[in-house]
Amino acid sequence: MPQGKPLVVPDDGLTTRQRRNRPLLAVHTGEMKGKSTAAFGMALRAWNQGWSIGVFQFVKSAKWKVGEENAFRALGALHESSGQGGPVEWHKMGEGWSWSRKPGSDEDHAANAREGWAEIKRRLAEERHDFYVLDEFTYPLHWGWIDTAEVVAALRDRPGRQHVVITGRNAPEELIEAADLVTRMTKVKHPMDTGQKGQRGIEW
Amino acid sequence: MPQGKPLVVPDDGLTTRQRRNRPLLAVHTGEMKGKSTAAFGMALRAWNQGWSIGVFQFVKSAKWKVGEENAFRALGALHESSGQGGPVEWHKMGEGWSWSRKPGSDEDHAANAREGWAEIKRRLAEERHDFYVLDEFTYPLHWGWIDTAEVVAALRDRPGRQHVVITGRNAPEELIEAADLVTRMTKVKHPMDTGQKGQRGIEW
Repeated sequence: MPQGKPLVVPDDGLTTRQRRNRPLLAVHTGEMKGKSTAAFGMALRAWNQGWSIGVFQFVKSAKWKVGEENAFRALGALHESSGQGGPVEWHKMGEGWSWSRKPGSDEDHAANAREGWAEIKRRLAEERHDFYVLDEFTYPLHWGWIDTAEVVAALRDRPGRQHVVITGRNAPEELIEAADLVTRMTKVKHPMDTGQKGQRGIEW
Repeated sequence: MPQGKPLVVPDDGLTTRQRRNRPLLAVHTGEMKGKSTAAFGMALRAWNQGWSIGVFQFVKSAKWKVGEENAFRALGALHESSGQGGPVEWHKMGEGWSWSRKPGSDEDHAANAREGWAEIKRRLAEERHDFYVLDEFTYPLHWGWIDTAEVVAALRDRPGRQHVVITGRNAPEELIEAADLVTRMTKVKHPMDTGQKGQRGIEW
């Protein structure tokens, strides 16, 4: 983790404190696992700060990532009962967005994805959360279901101090340009290369 | 995340199930943040499986990564009070190893690191935990404080089904060779490049 002095002190008229506290747009991309996992690890720190966390998963299956989901739902419940940490909302496209009356449909993933983004855009405008995880959100962008330029504009113009982490392969170049922090997870070695399949507790 | 068929079905005499359930040795290395964060994200899944989690942080300062620590301590307490998830132990070199009578010393980091590894080795032999995070453990290996060959042998011969994730820069080549899963976190862009310092809730 980088420590100490930044490489450049920009002439942007901001104090160090103002610059330090700018809201972050992070993108985790690359072909290797760890993209979502690292985003949820960041959300642990956000929870510990008492921040409001909103997770939006652009996944087809409601069954994905239940491990992280259950742990965060437990942390959210702990916040409600004891005041410890922050509140957690967890929304999944694959089971039908929770705010929507429509059940999740296999027929129109593009419409479902657009509906998810419309809700996120509303919440950003209302400053609903402090920390957003838009998990696997690069896919609807990459496939052209959601307009990347519109997303970049909404993120650029978001009010207040809302941190956003976006995960997924094939992050569009415009999104990478707009982001403050971009990490690429690259594979050095994977058990599947030697014939091992994914296992409970490790992959999900 | 890789799905479906592995690339190779090895002729190792194991069934798919046996092969699937082999304990995992993972290494997160590279110069970019996300190494520890992704390890703690994996630990969320382990917690959700009800696994016993042991975190061992080879960090100098007791103040590092308090966000993740507090969240996992909350999850561990939740397990104790409600039975949900798994038990969590969190040990830090920087505040003096909890099992040791000696306080953490600034004088002999090498001896402290060796003491930490000796305890982990004992626990592996006893099958104390299901999921180990050896956070920043590559540093004492890289600096030669702990013998990498001994670590690799102890990990290779560990009994039962104990998963181990090791994080840190400069992972020694022998460790990478021994690992099942190796991810390198590489920087595409970091806010410090444009003069932004780390901030609360994001960096710690």
